[in-house]
Amino acid sequence: MKITVLSGGVGGARFLRGLRDAAPSDSITAVVNTGDDMWLTGLRIAPDLDSIMYTLAGENDEQRGWGRVGETERVSGELRAYGVGWPWFTLGDLDIGTHITRSHLLREGVPLSAVTARLTSRWPLGVSLIPATDDEVETHVEVEGGEQLHFQEWWTRHRAALPALAFVQRNVERSRPAPGVLEAVADADVILVAPSNPVVSVGTILGIPGIRAALAAASAPVVGVSPIIDGSAVRGMADACLSAIGVETSALAVARHYGARSSGGLLDAWLVDETDAAALPELTAAGIAANAVPLWMRDPATSAQLARDALELAATAR
Amino acid sequence: MKITVLSGGVGGARFLRGLRDAAPSDSITAVVNTGDDMWLTGLRIAPDLDSIMYTLAGENDEQRGWGRVGETERVSGELRAYGVGWPWFTLGDLDIGTHITRSHLLREGVPLSAVTARLTSRWPLGVSLIPATDDEVETHVEVEGGEQLHFQEWWTRHRAALPALAFVQRNVERSRPAPGVLEAVADADVILVAPSNPVVSVGTILGIPGIRAALAAASAPVVGVSPIIDGSAVRGMADACLSAIGVETSALAVARHYGARSSGGLLDAWLVDETDAAALPELTAAGIAANAVPLWMRDPATSAQLARDALELAATAR
Repeated sequence: MKITVLSGGVGGARFLRGLRDAAPSDSITAVVNTGDDMWLTGLRIAPDLDSIMYTLAGENDEQRGWGRVGETERVSGELRAYGVGWPWFTLGDLDIGTHITRSHLLREGVPLSAVTARLTSRWPLGVSLIPATDDEVETHVEVEGGEQLHFQEWWTRHRAALPALAFVQRNVERSRPAPGVLEAVADADVILVAPSNPVVSVGTILGIPGIRAALAAASAPVVGVSPIIDGSAVRGMADACLSAIGVETSALAVARHYGARSSGGLLDAWLVDETDAAALPELTAAGIAANAVPLWMRDPATSAQLARDALELAATAR
Repeated sequence: MKITVLSGGVGGARFLRGLRDAAPSDSITAVVNTGDDMWLTGLRIAPDLDSIMYTLAGENDEQRGWGRVGETERVSGELRAYGVGWPWFTLGDLDIGTHITRSHLLREGVPLSAVTARLTSRWPLGVSLIPATDDEVETHVEVEGGEQLHFQEWWTRHRAALPALAFVQRNVERSRPAPGVLEAVADADVILVAPSNPVVSVGTILGIPGIRAALAAASAPVVGVSPIIDGSAVRGMADACLSAIGVETSALAVARHYGARSSGGLLDAWLVDETDAAALPELTAAGIAANAVPLWMRDPATSAQLARDALELAATAR
């Protein structure tokens, strides 16, 4: 079976690991958000691609929840001493090895999708990673006074505490899906939407011209997993992103935001947490098949079970 | 007093540290070779500038003889795992912090001399470092079959064992001295030539259009310190460089190669090791004032004494 997943970073990484463990003989392709990417002191950082790569490689730091396990920060200490970079954004040494490699290959003219294929070939990940686009589409956040901050600055430095007026995916209108993205959507037997940030992760992927239409035309069912459990974001500060676009922080509201595929939206089905089971009738009424299961991905086992639940819902959808 | 020193890397670094310790109230400027510089995986490496900076900052690894003290190589391990860079050329993590900073500033359009001023401002070095040129003049080595290797590859990978047919300073004819170089030569009270490689360190500096003429016109005496002691190079494999240009590995032959200033050459005076005292009459006959003293820079104290001996010889020259 061919499974294609739209994914952001950390939450998506856990979901993909669960999916790989649950469906080891299936062909899994992740279409990954690159809106958080940026150039920093000449290095191209791709947080979502790297979170997924490290997690699937078993090289991620489970304790901390991001980055490489056994990481050190000696290079960043030097950058700080020289006064370059963002003092509030610390890159690990092993992680910098990835960034130097990626930046070097990009400068040699290798597109990000090919760079990603090369980087990920180091480990047997069990999932093919494709950036949603090879173009540099970076999410910026418009705050009071009209200033636009890079999403990383708003998220990491300000911890999403500055009210966001709008999210701007710079250059998105001129971007194109990376090679393989449209094929992965068209050829899929199941399309899953990972429990990632609906605005800046999944939303950015959907904003790339051509992807929404491919999803609408896909023969596979599209099944999403709610990133909201019992009225709060599972990871981080997604509520600050949702409120900026006028969407309530609830499993139901996010599903309505994505929309029912039968009404021109994204979803055939939507998986919510047990605590949000009350939303099931409303979801069904909105034309979205739904089920309520435990959504917390506490460890590989619960993540694999969630993936199985998503696949099961997909089998009944459409 | 204003002292200007033409310098290569490790040997020059020790000499400069000795000079700073011997003449702490003098204004010391080092004009530094950049022919060993290169781009590697998108990072601009400047071995001589960094050797000097680290040594004067007290951050160098005395044991190993190069690089930063307490260095680790985690980033290089990653680059190797991803299959980029030169597997035989390992950069330390702290050192990579310097390279990322330099490369980032260069890409922002800051010339190398200004980048160097910014990097060195981190520590009270007691010496102003100026790259000989802001232009990318990289030394290549022509070997059998006509192939040209970057100097670093010939030196580090092949340990200078491939017979060198010629040294080519690429782009040198179009290069210009960095801002401050000609002034440092013209305004100096004493000009010293560090015991650095006469071919690829000092030779590269002298090859930059305008520098030789400035030295010839300078009012200060030019005093060199022999990098050859008793028929062998003090550091590394300089003999392989000398033989490629048909110069014997001896203190006398190197002085003759530089030439007496009175005959259109570089030197007013030449400091040789005690073991090479037999060369003194021939040096004098060639129009080069000379003295024989202990040249080995075993530690800061012997380096400072050598610097004092060079300054003393300068006081008697011209």
